[in-house]
Amino acid sequence: MEPRAKIWIERDGRLVLSDYRVRLLRLIDESGSLADAAKAMGLSYRRAWGKVKEIERNLGVPLLESAAGGPGGGGSHLTPEARRLVDQYGNFRTAAEADLTRNFRKSFEDTPG
Amino acid sequence: MEPRAKIWIERDGRLVLSDYRVRLLRLIDESGSLADAAKAMGLSYRRAWGKVKEIERNLGVPLLESAAGGPGGGGSHLTPEARRLVDQYGNFRTAAEADLTRNFRKSFEDTPG
Repeated sequence: MEPRAKIWIERDGRLVLSDYRVRLLRLIDESGSLADAAKAMGLSYRRAWGKVKEIERNLGVPLLESAAGGPGGGGSHLTPEARRLVDQYGNFRTAAEADLTRNFRKSFEDTPG
Repeated sequence: MEPRAKIWIERDGRLVLSDYRVRLLRLIDESGSLADAAKAMGLSYRRAWGKVKEIERNLGVPLLESAAGGPGGGGSHLTPEARRLVDQYGNFRTAAEADLTRNFRKSFEDTPG
């Protein structure tokens, strides 16, 4: 047997951070481009943008800064606050997973299967 | 912000224990009757029975013992192995929830909201 968990974070009863959403933010951070991040996740630009705006709205925190355009296009990057949340979520996720395994072993020790 | 989690247990990639399934087993244990447990969960007897059989199949462990009938009907109760799994799941669930909160606070401390 093995434990499984789906973990997310809400604010005022609304989903704000989940593996999926944090993956989108991380990809924006890595690529410096919302378009590239959207593509990597198989989302339309419009949908990815809407997702980021929804997180911003539910968190009450700006997540994306867009640089002015130009020949090479503008590009997007995360605000310091967004980068901090992504890091915090990563720490939370890792610790939660380790403890899940630990708690499972402790609770179900000596059980066959 | 607050952490949320959906937790379950698989065996060979198949769902075996979850809050919902353990609640059904617990209700059978408390009422001594699969029919009463099914009713309390808004399930048909057939569906509740199928659910228990599915868990048994996926776990490879018998969960239900049925007493012979008679004027008052037979009744069902959990096998010692099933009762043990229900208890272990309860311990696991409680510890997992406490650690989720602890990990969340540790990871997100000093974050507004």
